[in-house]
Amino acid sequence: MVPAGVDFHKSYLHPRRSGRLKMKAFSPYGLVRRREESGTSSGGQRGRRKWMIVSNSRQTRDVNHSPSVFLGIDGGGTRTRALLVDIATGTARAACGPSTNPHAGGFETAFRNLSVVLSELFEGDGDRAPQVDCAFAGIAGLRSAADRGEFARSGILEGIAGRLAYGHDAYGAWAGALACAPGLVVLCGTGSKVYGMTPSGKTVETGGFGFLLGDEGSAAWIGLQGLRRVVAAAQGRAPATALSDALLACLKCRSVDELPERVYAAGLTSRRFASLCPIVAAVAGGGDEVARGIFREGGRKLAELARAAVRSFAGDDTVSVSYQGSVFECGELILEPFRTRLQERGSRVALELPRFSGVEGSVLLAMRDSGLENPVNVLAGVLSRTERG
Amino acid sequence: MVPAGVDFHKSYLHPRRSGRLKMKAFSPYGLVRRREESGTSSGGQRGRRKWMIVSNSRQTRDVNHSPSVFLGIDGGGTRTRALLVDIATGTARAACGPSTNPHAGGFETAFRNLSVVLSELFEGDGDRAPQVDCAFAGIAGLRSAADRGEFARSGILEGIAGRLAYGHDAYGAWAGALACAPGLVVLCGTGSKVYGMTPSGKTVETGGFGFLLGDEGSAAWIGLQGLRRVVAAAQGRAPATALSDALLACLKCRSVDELPERVYAAGLTSRRFASLCPIVAAVAGGGDEVARGIFREGGRKLAELARAAVRSFAGDDTVSVSYQGSVFECGELILEPFRTRLQERGSRVALELPRFSGVEGSVLLAMRDSGLENPVNVLAGVLSRTERG
Repeated sequence: MVPAGVDFHKSYLHPRRSGRLKMKAFSPYGLVRRREESGTSSGGQRGRRKWMIVSNSRQTRDVNHSPSVFLGIDGGGTRTRALLVDIATGTARAACGPSTNPHAGGFETAFRNLSVVLSELFEGDGDRAPQVDCAFAGIAGLRSAADRGEFARSGILEGIAGRLAYGHDAYGAWAGALACAPGLVVLCGTGSKVYGMTPSGKTVETGGFGFLLGDEGSAAWIGLQGLRRVVAAAQGRAPATALSDALLACLKCRSVDELPERVYAAGLTSRRFASLCPIVAAVAGGGDEVARGIFREGGRKLAELARAAVRSFAGDDTVSVSYQGSVFECGELILEPFRTRLQERGSRVALELPRFSGVEGSVLLAMRDSGLENPVNVLAGVLSRTERG
Repeated sequence: MVPAGVDFHKSYLHPRRSGRLKMKAFSPYGLVRRREESGTSSGGQRGRRKWMIVSNSRQTRDVNHSPSVFLGIDGGGTRTRALLVDIATGTARAACGPSTNPHAGGFETAFRNLSVVLSELFEGDGDRAPQVDCAFAGIAGLRSAADRGEFARSGILEGIAGRLAYGHDAYGAWAGALACAPGLVVLCGTGSKVYGMTPSGKTVETGGFGFLLGDEGSAAWIGLQGLRRVVAAAQGRAPATALSDALLACLKCRSVDELPERVYAAGLTSRRFASLCPIVAAVAGGGDEVARGIFREGGRKLAELARAAVRSFAGDDTVSVSYQGSVFECGELILEPFRTRLQERGSRVALELPRFSGVEGSVLLAMRDSGLENPVNVLAGVLSRTERG
């Protein structure tokens, strides 16, 4: 349905996995409690390595233990992905679940959803689950120290990982796209933002204010623009195209007059509008000029976000710019206008293909945080030997 | 604060009156119940006319009674106005209260708010309140027959008026602006829409899909555009101007980073964004180019709505276009771009100053509905002798 896009999202991270979630086996934070209660006990064989299930407390750990199991979390506006990489066995496994953005559905929902993803990740392990040495959790909406404190107090990841850091999902996305090198990543999923790091280590951000105040080019923005064109077409202010039928059918509206009821009565969430983005992409892929125009405008606006962020980089050096997120999976529909506007006269950017995905970037940050040498090569090595490569 | 605009809103319709509402004396629909219970009784002297308090039932009315008391209701997205005109005494009185749009706060809230306005209108009358011969209630959001049925079943106005019709507020706005002549009215208050009547009596509508799906140029749209410019300015994507300080101060934000919390956590209503429009207007009035640009774009978009509606008028005849609503009270800020775009090459419109306000238009419709001859002259005559003239 959606035109072939960039191929950094491979099968093992595919959202269809979330369909396998066994909710009946889940109780909130149950996984964590079970682990906290288990204490130091029961070694087990898995691959080439002997696992020790230990309590949360770092004091009980073997001080000579060299870190080899890393967990990355990428909590986006719509989905949360987890990736567990074991460099000793050279294996990786992944899980996917609902959004953990605390400002979308509240902290309790975010904690529950995070637990769901972890339950899936460790499903079937029982007490033989690997001890995670280091984890980085990148969560959408986790901006303030207070927010990070809430997550830390929940104890969910603390029960699993020996060493742990929380940040927002853009940090993992940047780490993945540019393999932790200075530069910018343009994130475009449910929402949109630009995040980056200067050579001196200063962080840079533009965008990311949600679908009403900004988020141009995001899936929510694209869905909303689609609906606005449907209304304009019905009123003779714009050409009526295939987009109208497709979006009205998707929202189960017999006519455009039913649209306000469907949109306003159901509550206004960015995720709801973002869910229409694949429809707009499909219609655009079929050649519809109105739908293509939405992607053209979105791509240009994303490039403008990035160009505004480039000004935060000192001097005249060229700035690496890469990208992440589900909207870029729509391929040239969004990439062509993005690339063109980004590289217009006067810009000092070098567009780079994303090296790793956001959740892989989170693993990279966990590896770097543990002091592991050359994490980029290590991760690339493991991934090349797993389903990804 | 707001630059002087068109002057069709005179003091007796001024919203400050709503400050006088005596809520303690109010119980939901109490006014109606009192009237229903009073039956046919107690004549009273008021001005030159003897009033008869009669029950709601039309059967008890004097069949020879010639209609002389008319009630108009203009229920907008933010405020509801009521105007009672007595052509026998040549007097008018008005009241103002909160919105009665049932799709904004629900039917129960709408009914309660309508009762509040009526309580104020008849405050102090006791059993000497005038019997209304004919009423028209124009209510924002009242689109379907089912909605009108809900209002009719509430019995609120049925307890007061002998003859009664419900419609949406755009109908009253059109009746007022063009004195019921064929043509279009551009409504721009909390929301925006274009409504009109062709010479053959066919109704025409464009816009009116709420602040997410349309409503370009409306107060909600202007407020939201203002906030988007604040975000863009903070991120170096647009010039930082006086608008940023003014809007952040209004929302009690110390910095732009607090904006998402203020906007999203509080729930997203069009009225909330519309309440920022006066701030944008004040800054624009002070010469701020960014704020002026928002009004320019809004004015042009309103003109485009009207031009799309003109296509529904057969032949090449010139179509009268007028306007109503609080945003037009910002004067030339919005009128200049509106007028310019409306009259651009290829249009066949004659721009007309609004003759009456929306609530006066509702009275006009009530008069016309009662079979009164030459209602426009009668209404103009009464209004010229009241506070308005």
